[in-house]
Amino acid sequence: MIENPYYSHEFHGDYDLISVGELQLEEGGTIPDCQLAVATFGTLNAAKDNAILIPTWYSGTHQIWRDVYIGPDHALNPDKYFIVCVDQIGSGLSTSPHNAGGPNESISMSKFPHVRIGDNVVAQERLLREHFGIDRLALVVGGSMGAQQTYEWAVRFPDKVLRAAPIAGTAQNTPGDFLIAEAMREAIQSDPGFNGVEYQSNTDVEDGLRRQAHIWAVVGFSTEFWKQEVWRALDFDSREAFLAGFLDPYFTAMDPNDLLTQSWAWQRGDVARHTGGDLAAALARITAKTFVMPIDEDQLFPPRDCAAEQDLIPGSQLRVIEDVLGHLGLFGVAPTYLPQIDKHLAELLATEV
Amino acid sequence: MIENPYYSHEFHGDYDLISVGELQLEEGGTIPDCQLAVATFGTLNAAKDNAILIPTWYSGTHQIWRDVYIGPDHALNPDKYFIVCVDQIGSGLSTSPHNAGGPNESISMSKFPHVRIGDNVVAQERLLREHFGIDRLALVVGGSMGAQQTYEWAVRFPDKVLRAAPIAGTAQNTPGDFLIAEAMREAIQSDPGFNGVEYQSNTDVEDGLRRQAHIWAVVGFSTEFWKQEVWRALDFDSREAFLAGFLDPYFTAMDPNDLLTQSWAWQRGDVARHTGGDLAAALARITAKTFVMPIDEDQLFPPRDCAAEQDLIPGSQLRVIEDVLGHLGLFGVAPTYLPQIDKHLAELLATEV
Repeated sequence: MIENPYYSHEFHGDYDLISVGELQLEEGGTIPDCQLAVATFGTLNAAKDNAILIPTWYSGTHQIWRDVYIGPDHALNPDKYFIVCVDQIGSGLSTSPHNAGGPNESISMSKFPHVRIGDNVVAQERLLREHFGIDRLALVVGGSMGAQQTYEWAVRFPDKVLRAAPIAGTAQNTPGDFLIAEAMREAIQSDPGFNGVEYQSNTDVEDGLRRQAHIWAVVGFSTEFWKQEVWRALDFDSREAFLAGFLDPYFTAMDPNDLLTQSWAWQRGDVARHTGGDLAAALARITAKTFVMPIDEDQLFPPRDCAAEQDLIPGSQLRVIEDVLGHLGLFGVAPTYLPQIDKHLAELLATEV
Repeated sequence: MIENPYYSHEFHGDYDLISVGELQLEEGGTIPDCQLAVATFGTLNAAKDNAILIPTWYSGTHQIWRDVYIGPDHALNPDKYFIVCVDQIGSGLSTSPHNAGGPNESISMSKFPHVRIGDNVVAQERLLREHFGIDRLALVVGGSMGAQQTYEWAVRFPDKVLRAAPIAGTAQNTPGDFLIAEAMREAIQSDPGFNGVEYQSNTDVEDGLRRQAHIWAVVGFSTEFWKQEVWRALDFDSREAFLAGFLDPYFTAMDPNDLLTQSWAWQRGDVARHTGGDLAAALARITAKTFVMPIDEDQLFPPRDCAAEQDLIPGSQLRVIEDVLGHLGLFGVAPTYLPQIDKHLAELLATEV
């Protein structure tokens, strides 16, 4: 175990750690005591049919959803819905390499097993069923790796997902995306302080984490974001100040191995694992009413990749979000971003299924 | 000086090393004896009005132009034109950090001064005038950093450039592009073998050069290149084999500091330096008949960035090249690429000016 103050209630507010017990993993490993960090908003009704699940993205937690997406003025309205946001395995809040101790001591740090998108979804399904008694979800919505988990939910448990909204993500990760994640992994792993995964503190890998942030700067935002100097709206007066004051500290606070656990899963997200590699067959299983929501300037998950998948999902619709920030538009910084999300999610939630 | 067998006639065929003497640099440094590697094709006519200049791109030399772009079946026809291809300073063939010896011993390796796009153009102008007696160019054409030099020529020496064809490059480097180059620089510089620029051999920095290659893999090609597995056309049977057999060795053979000299100039290419930062005023100086030729899938120099500049060049035309390879379509691998280049260049060369 490594102490890292970033992964705490101080930085992430209220959440509960809920064990779903031993989790057998698709790659063959085991998490002896899989703890999920869970933040809930609103109240589960008696019929238990107002539940919404939100899985999280790479480097993100429930915090961004709570602060940006959820509220009485939004489609994700806790006055109407019981919203369950589950931080993914390796997020640093749920069971992760850096915090694996006690019953998970055997999988600490370099001994942490490979975790897939499917493992997260299996753990979440168990959590919802055993802990909350939820059998069907009014909606699963997530961005980026959260979209990967959303697709996995809709394909793996079609009867349990009434509506699905994958934002800025794909059902089958593309090779270009794999290579982006690989370049980020290499930036971290090449830091001498990484020390073969057995660093003593995330600060030992600060240089590598910063280089990884700079690859995010390139692909996470759009070229237009930089050209139009959109960061000025965030009260920075230079590009360098924005990097040093926002993107660098965002990532250098995190645990390198936790990030690597997430990106390993990200690289291999693929619902066609359920159908012997046949993506069309996998997506044809989806019965959820699905709005596929790419961001127009996204370089990680370009709209054409998302549209090609949407075309294979029965009854689905393509709803392109306009945001010059690109993939990191997910942060909800642009004032025009969330109104688009709210509009589409409200329409999706209002759709009878 | 460092021995590096890549920078040799064995790998680059015929070229001459021609000194243009002492070169005072825009940043204040000096190259005591600036040697330019020059490959020529065809014969200068008596009127000396059939000369074409080709400046080179990052990591590239005259070799790719000789092998792919120049020939009796191409617009760049040595039977009609006297084609002068000049390897840029820092290319590894012309004066560069790794080969600076003799009169340039004082600027070897870490002591090598900062060189700008403008310095290259000044050296080339001197070469053409003093060595070849050429005062006017029928055409300046270059890709990527070669496009930057093409723009610099057209703005700095408008009377000397009759036609200009910047391919896949901009007159003013964008911030997004700066950050891409910066991520590549960090990949190289972070290698412990880089040793503060004073490595003993490029092989000491092989890991960093390979990581730099992997960032090229992400931004140099398009996502569609990877998705469509276009590398199969190059006789590789996996993505990993393509990287290990093509892109990795391409870059690991090179000198790290030479690449850094080039990317420093790339990051700062800006013709508006001539007009106090006014890009429109700088581009308005261009009298050359100009075809601006972005590649549609280029992530480094997206067509919209090129089109915005083209709009500011009097009498210019936008000619978008279609190539799924993206920026590295410049290698001319796709059979559909060069016919487009030839068509546009032939039309440009046929235009009376």
